[in-house]
Amino acid sequence: MDKPLYLTGKDLSISDVARVARGDVRVEITPERCARIEQTRKVVLELAQDNNMPRIYGFNTGLGMNKDWSISQEDMEAFNRGVIYSHSAAIGPETTEEETRAVMLVRLNSFLSDATGVQPDLIYRYRDMLNLRLHPVLPRRGSIGESDLVVMAHIGQAIMGEGLVIYQGKRMPAREALEKAGLKPIVLECKGALAVVNTNALGSGLGALLLQDAADFIDSCELVFALAMEGYGANTSPLDPAAYAARPVPGPTKTAERVRRFLEGSFLWRPGITTTFQDPLSYRSGCHVLGAVRDCLGYARQHLQIQINSSDDNPCVIADELRIISCSNFDPTSLALGLEMLGLSLSHVSKNLCYQLIRLDTPYFSRLNRFLSPDGTSVMAYTTNQKTYTSLDTENRLLSNPVTADFISVSGDVEDHATNLPLIADKTARMLDNLYYMLGHLAFHAAQAIDLRKEAPLGAYTGKAYAAIREVIPFLDRDRIVTTDIRKAYDLVRSGVFARIANG
Amino acid sequence: MDKPLYLTGKDLSISDVARVARGDVRVEITPERCARIEQTRKVVLELAQDNNMPRIYGFNTGLGMNKDWSISQEDMEAFNRGVIYSHSAAIGPETTEEETRAVMLVRLNSFLSDATGVQPDLIYRYRDMLNLRLHPVLPRRGSIGESDLVVMAHIGQAIMGEGLVIYQGKRMPAREALEKAGLKPIVLECKGALAVVNTNALGSGLGALLLQDAADFIDSCELVFALAMEGYGANTSPLDPAAYAARPVPGPTKTAERVRRFLEGSFLWRPGITTTFQDPLSYRSGCHVLGAVRDCLGYARQHLQIQINSSDDNPCVIADELRIISCSNFDPTSLALGLEMLGLSLSHVSKNLCYQLIRLDTPYFSRLNRFLSPDGTSVMAYTTNQKTYTSLDTENRLLSNPVTADFISVSGDVEDHATNLPLIADKTARMLDNLYYMLGHLAFHAAQAIDLRKEAPLGAYTGKAYAAIREVIPFLDRDRIVTTDIRKAYDLVRSGVFARIANG
Amino acid sequence: MDKPLYLTGKDLSISDVARVARGDVRVEITPERCARIEQTRKVVLELAQDNNMPRIYGFNTGLGMNKDWSISQEDMEAFNRGVIYSHSAAIGPETTEEETRAVMLVRLNSFLSDATGVQPDLIYRYRDMLNLRLHPVLPRRGSIGESDLVVMAHIGQAIMGEGLVIYQGKRMPAREALEKAGLKPIVLECKGALAVVNTNALGSGLGALLLQDAADFIDSCELVFALAMEGYGANTSPLDPAAYAARPVPGPTKTAERVRRFLEGSFLWRPGITTTFQDPLSYRSGCHVLGAVRDCLGYARQHLQIQINSSDDNPCVIADELRIISCSNFDPTSLALGLEMLGLSLSHVSKNLCYQLIRLDTPYFSRLNRFLSPDGTSVMAYTTNQKTYTSLDTENRLLSNPVTADFISVSGDVEDHATNLPLIADKTARMLDNLYYMLGHLAFHAAQAIDLRKEAPLGAYTGKAYAAIREVIPFLDRDRIVTTDIRKAYDLVRSGVFARIANG
Amino acid sequence: MDKPLYLTGKDLSISDVARVARGDVRVEITPERCARIEQTRKVVLELAQDNNMPRIYGFNTGLGMNKDWSISQEDMEAFNRGVIYSHSAAIGPETTEEETRAVMLVRLNSFLSDATGVQPDLIYRYRDMLNLRLHPVLPRRGSIGESDLVVMAHIGQAIMGEGLVIYQGKRMPAREALEKAGLKPIVLECKGALAVVNTNALGSGLGALLLQDAADFIDSCELVFALAMEGYGANTSPLDPAAYAARPVPGPTKTAERVRRFLEGSFLWRPGITTTFQDPLSYRSGCHVLGAVRDCLGYARQHLQIQINSSDDNPCVIADELRIISCSNFDPTSLALGLEMLGLSLSHVSKNLCYQLIRLDTPYFSRLNRFLSPDGTSVMAYTTNQKTYTSLDTENRLLSNPVTADFISVSGDVEDHATNLPLIADKTARMLDNLYYMLGHLAFHAAQAIDLRKEAPLGAYTGKAYAAIREVIPFLDRDRIVTTDIRKAYDLVRSGVFARIANG
Repeated sequence: MDKPLYLTGKDLSISDVARVARGDVRVEITPERCARIEQTRKVVLELAQDNNMPRIYGFNTGLGMNKDWSISQEDMEAFNRGVIYSHSAAIGPETTEEETRAVMLVRLNSFLSDATGVQPDLIYRYRDMLNLRLHPVLPRRGSIGESDLVVMAHIGQAIMGEGLVIYQGKRMPAREALEKAGLKPIVLECKGALAVVNTNALGSGLGALLLQDAADFIDSCELVFALAMEGYGANTSPLDPAAYAARPVPGPTKTAERVRRFLEGSFLWRPGITTTFQDPLSYRSGCHVLGAVRDCLGYARQHLQIQINSSDDNPCVIADELRIISCSNFDPTSLALGLEMLGLSLSHVSKNLCYQLIRLDTPYFSRLNRFLSPDGTSVMAYTTNQKTYTSLDTENRLLSNPVTADFISVSGDVEDHATNLPLIADKTARMLDNLYYMLGHLAFHAAQAIDLRKEAPLGAYTGKAYAAIREVIPFLDRDRIVTTDIRKAYDLVRSGVFARIANG
Repeated sequence: MDKPLYLTGKDLSISDVARVARGDVRVEITPERCARIEQTRKVVLELAQDNNMPRIYGFNTGLGMNKDWSISQEDMEAFNRGVIYSHSAAIGPETTEEETRAVMLVRLNSFLSDATGVQPDLIYRYRDMLNLRLHPVLPRRGSIGESDLVVMAHIGQAIMGEGLVIYQGKRMPAREALEKAGLKPIVLECKGALAVVNTNALGSGLGALLLQDAADFIDSCELVFALAMEGYGANTSPLDPAAYAARPVPGPTKTAERVRRFLEGSFLWRPGITTTFQDPLSYRSGCHVLGAVRDCLGYARQHLQIQINSSDDNPCVIADELRIISCSNFDPTSLALGLEMLGLSLSHVSKNLCYQLIRLDTPYFSRLNRFLSPDGTSVMAYTTNQKTYTSLDTENRLLSNPVTADFISVSGDVEDHATNLPLIADKTARMLDNLYYMLGHLAFHAAQAIDLRKEAPLGAYTGKAYAAIREVIPFLDRDRIVTTDIRKAYDLVRSGVFARIANG
Repeated sequence: MDKPLYLTGKDLSISDVARVARGDVRVEITPERCARIEQTRKVVLELAQDNNMPRIYGFNTGLGMNKDWSISQEDMEAFNRGVIYSHSAAIGPETTEEETRAVMLVRLNSFLSDATGVQPDLIYRYRDMLNLRLHPVLPRRGSIGESDLVVMAHIGQAIMGEGLVIYQGKRMPAREALEKAGLKPIVLECKGALAVVNTNALGSGLGALLLQDAADFIDSCELVFALAMEGYGANTSPLDPAAYAARPVPGPTKTAERVRRFLEGSFLWRPGITTTFQDPLSYRSGCHVLGAVRDCLGYARQHLQIQINSSDDNPCVIADELRIISCSNFDPTSLALGLEMLGLSLSHVSKNLCYQLIRLDTPYFSRLNRFLSPDGTSVMAYTTNQKTYTSLDTENRLLSNPVTADFISVSGDVEDHATNLPLIADKTARMLDNLYYMLGHLAFHAAQAIDLRKEAPLGAYTGKAYAAIREVIPFLDRDRIVTTDIRKAYDLVRSGVFARIANG
Repeated sequence: MDKPLYLTGKDLSISDVARVARGDVRVEITPERCARIEQTRKVVLELAQDNNMPRIYGFNTGLGMNKDWSISQEDMEAFNRGVIYSHSAAIGPETTEEETRAVMLVRLNSFLSDATGVQPDLIYRYRDMLNLRLHPVLPRRGSIGESDLVVMAHIGQAIMGEGLVIYQGKRMPAREALEKAGLKPIVLECKGALAVVNTNALGSGLGALLLQDAADFIDSCELVFALAMEGYGANTSPLDPAAYAARPVPGPTKTAERVRRFLEGSFLWRPGITTTFQDPLSYRSGCHVLGAVRDCLGYARQHLQIQINSSDDNPCVIADELRIISCSNFDPTSLALGLEMLGLSLSHVSKNLCYQLIRLDTPYFSRLNRFLSPDGTSVMAYTTNQKTYTSLDTENRLLSNPVTADFISVSGDVEDHATNLPLIADKTARMLDNLYYMLGHLAFHAAQAIDLRKEAPLGAYTGKAYAAIREVIPFLDRDRIVTTDIRKAYDLVRSGVFARIANG
């Protein structure tokens, strides 16, 4: 097991989220933060018990339209239970355990930003559940991305010992799991239920995994693109650093620098190896397209970083000033827009991959046999999977349509804005999954083209990429079931091996 | 077991497809059709063996770009195997067994339209596989809807005894299943592989199930809408037949007639029961919205009916004239457009359901407690699931975006048109599934509103609908986990009980 | 001047609308209808003056949310004026005079369906304004397609002698125009303002012109497609009637029949003229794509026909039964969906035209010089306008996105459904305009290809089409400004000459 | 006249572009840059005349697919003329003169980045045409956003003395205008035509004006939002800086700071003035929505800044290294994505404005008369224009659909990537224009609400905004034609007065 990750509320990184979600990393809260949240809770309770205190939303009032209800101390437990019950309104499919962990980690860290003012044992419970691998079952749909209330309430159920969880890999009632784990259900006190439900942790958690995966994908994609350049016999002139100096767009500049490195020592640099200048744009502009994703990722990462290291609570407790203010920190519009743009950038990659593949298959361009057939006279080879990957592009086109501003005014017309952040994260993740399939295609097409072209040597990194492919997918010398190659290539890309080579 | 369904190639109905796909109905081929396909095959073989015969696409040539290949009789088996292998390029998720049956039935019936000219044992094999419940495993994605080649090839694998199948509910290698079933692999002869792959049976089969489900949904929806009118205390004036006589749009006219019937005897008709005229349009125009779906369904059904009762082969065998012609019968554009329009009509229903629900929850309109709370002072009731069903509407908005004309030119630029029919069927089915969830919401909200309103009697049919709901979902008298109600209501709607009551 | 068109409220055709809108046709009302509307008005006034009469929406109440206002007889004129003023809320750009005529004609005809019950002089005024060419200035935007209230109110202004009109081609204040025309402003009586504003005449009028233009476009497109087949040297096998008998989809069957006719006598039928079977689908499936538009047009025309020959009034007067009922006849959902589907079908044509053009330009396919250059060595010819027409396709893709279910609940949440019919008509008309440009490209490319191919004779109809093109656009023998050709070709297609040849 | 703007190729700002495009500012080239471009041209000519020199794309070869043509020195003029002719393939509508100026300025500045290597007199000609107000007529459509070839060629015509221009406000033949201006047509030498056409100056120029307008819009919008808060009687708590410190998203933080400033001294800060906490999100999250646009604008501005201060030429001349390299600097994908995201952010503003307006009109929320009627009993006031502005939102929803990855592979499949940059700029500008209409609505609704609310004083800046509105639009005391108010308010917002107050 890795050493624990200490949370401060301020410096959680996207890769931290991925590590904790997917690995076996303990999380701890720094003592300084523990002291702070205890102290803040004291302030809050004093404020709340002040008889002269005005009504504070969610502390001593109902929620939403029911803000006109007064909740007395005696009714607090029942009220909190009612909130969790009535807000438990999500529908399937469920999040994976990895996703659930990302969600809980993100919420835990935002608790530490110290604007929630909630009972500390609730905060510690998130930590313990993560460390014990006690994961609430979360139906993933139902949120409109303006706090993920209807999904988060299912965490609340688990905390109260209700509903279903997965405990150390086994599905069981929450009550049973708590018992096995030696934990007691938590009684939600003043603001407890609100603190559980009132967060965008679903959207942020899914978003963090998405951004990690997108970063890995681009790393892989740049390497496979370099390999495809070798398969294609592409002109290296568009990689020239002088061109990027003349137009210094950050993403493309970085991508080109990496692709040059991947191709170090490749036969492609040999003078005279390519006889055409002006390859098709799918190759010539390849760095600009992948680099554009880098640019968009930069924007999205900046905003997700803020999101997971700050409070999205409402009301917001300002302990130092003894104030509790109504606010709108649950609004993640800037972030949601960044994820939409990221999806659009991926739709360019999707088209680009299709054309890189088609050009490889086309004798006029690649100067290889039709559909990369080994003989061109009896083996059909990759004659039909053009339909497969272009059909994925069509699906990606669908998923690239925006959803962020499609909402209906709800809750007595008080909630007349929303962002649909979790849906954006979900649809973009589906695009990415399709892209992994498409990149897999490019990987085995590139390897086939390289074998047919018979030039050597490959580049410093592309050589390793080629070897990784050929370890699982042999040269196609006669027709075989293409689905098998597709599946193996997908698994290969998903395994992260290309990203590891690229960053090695 | 029901009595067998005799196939003629000409009169398969959408409900036949649903019955065979989902039930335990044997299929048989009429003797007249058997004789005919045997005779046609003879003609084809004579033509193909004529030494003076010109090259016929797919009979003695390669496929697609490889149409310049000549395939000799000796190479035929290897060629056919190569076609099946190289065309096996679909990716998951898999079709359900029901869907696979629909696909195979549709293909079987189109074989009988007698323009394929294929070996009869191949045709009989489809029948036998259906009757033996020997179902190839079909990854569902990869087709561009201009023949579902990459998916259909997986049927070809099973026929040749390769790949995976589900045989009588158990997943196993095709070879093993054939053995257990006492069948031999079929050796594909001249045009055999082409006949297997060159069909839109995936899109048509999925489409047939979709249209059946959409019809059932509308039947259910009209009934639950009538119930919601009672829950809302809606004005019945917009149901007046005279209004529909003044503007005789077919769908709305039919819907209004049905809703009137469902409400026969209801308290709603009692004079003075509704004090407002001019309810919100979600109620007032309810029949126009649902009726519009009926209008769109009519168009889509007409085209699907043609599709499943005709040949989509290319080339097309005209046995009577001893001709084999190159054609474009694999192009289902008109049908694809009908399914897209159907999806758009469902996006209106989606919005409509949201507003019907929200108005029920709103005291100003329904004159009931906020969010249908039983007391309005401590029970939150349906305070939060507005987010759930409106988030489904957002997803439906995404799925209502068109995909039909989003394709990339493939196969050496010869396939520069496509329809994406299977993707349209899939996305519309996903919309429909979301709508079943939404309709479930309306069902239990309507029942809750009826209980709170305390008017009687309910209508002749709505009374039964109310009882069906209350059989599984009790009155909400204090807060409970709403997800449970949502799930039960979804199952209820999906069970078809409302459609059965409506048509009873 | 043509002979007058007699209106009955029941049998106005789409081509009638186009003729009256664009030509110089007088409209008259049949005496039978005149008698009827006078009689109905009497009934209405009796009902309205009955002291025991309940409140009737819009007759003696305010509108929309203000239905709780009672309007006395004395306040009627002021009330009606207020309705017209407050509903005049449309924004530019303005409709053309042709469009205004279509709108007014459609409204006039729906008055005659006799469910409005409005003062007869108001009805006669629409007729007179049409015949006098006294056209209100109508800003075209602002309607949500659930009655075009905010636009129709501008007609109301003109009727009351306010606002701007175009009278016999000259823009002037309505008051001045009425004077010149010898008309008096009309004082709107009971239900007068409501009758003016409460109609979908904008959407229906624009829709009628659109459907007329779409029909003409398809007629032209089929002919130019036939010409392009000659330019391309296309295989005629996909036109074979036997193929359409084997799969009898109505639209494609009709298109193929027409294309065969256009090509009668063409060199294309000469044996051996085409050496390839299996042309690219842009040619092979051309009839299926254009035929699909015919199928969609059929649906849209059916619904528009109903729309312009029935009442969309609310409330609806049932004079024979002495009843006035609240209804939802202003809801044109089925029609709106038909227009959306039509737009989608046009997006297929858009792609199809691009690929037909690109294939013509490509030596591999057309066996002519690159970009249809006369020499292939110094003249660039149509090297760059591929960007032009594909950029129009991109715009068409944008315009093919649906809008019908994108609305916001308004009017105190009473208007929580809408169809956006006028916007659909507008965006589809813009697509059509782009398509006219694209078809123009195909026309001059086809002519150039024919000149380069040097085969004869052309078909019976395509020969005339070729001549029509060459009358305005000469053979390109050296580079010239392509924009000029594009513009001429657009004007040619827009002139309707191809439709006239096709139907001649 | 302002003092001249000196161009360096490196530091042109977006506001510079707007100033030169819309004002009367001379542009000059710094002497250092003049020297540099002369020197570079020398290098280029030496390289080009080197007999051993390889073929250089566009210098001594044909363009695009015709790169296999060799162009000799003798053919150069004819070749260049052919390029301009064959690339002149754009279609209308035309750019405005302001837009043309922006386009030419941007191209002029990118020439100075010194990677073009073109004849200096061509560069000077752009400067002179700007200073003489000699503006080529540019049809705006036809570019796919991967160099705006087909539009730019129309500038080439003017430079050669062909086609149409607008000279000092008068439309005339270019030849005539040059004569009047005392200029000679320029003979395009080696790379001349390529330099003219091969640039994204259309997309960048339109983009620069768009970003300037969007910035002004947001400035205005923040101020009118503050005014609407006063009209609504909104809670100021969501403006609290402590909330933004707890979640420091840059855009919202800045917007909130500005709105606080605008409201300095307002009655809204008076304790007890607002009795509700938790206003609808349209108000509560207003700063987050507008701030999100600021965040997106930041991204877009960064990329546009790079674009207009760098070279988008291909090939790219690296004079210092005596090299000319084939590259892909004409690919503006990152920028195109930024503009798409900006459009999406505006679609949120669009919805937000609608709901802010609707809430103002709703007594339950604003505690004012229905539709801001002065009496609530006879004046309808703003009862119907809810349809107007929500219909604009529907149009904005349409325009927010992405187009960037919708392209077709052209030019012999060499151009298989595009960005559609000019179309994005155009559709986003149309959204912005709609938003100006919507903001106008909010302005006069807010003023009406303030008059009805009768609270004082207004804020330091909102008071001025109120006065600016009331200067042109009086209080609505009885019904009047609403279109007039809408138009006046639009003009007011477009005049920039609110932006000036906001930044004053």
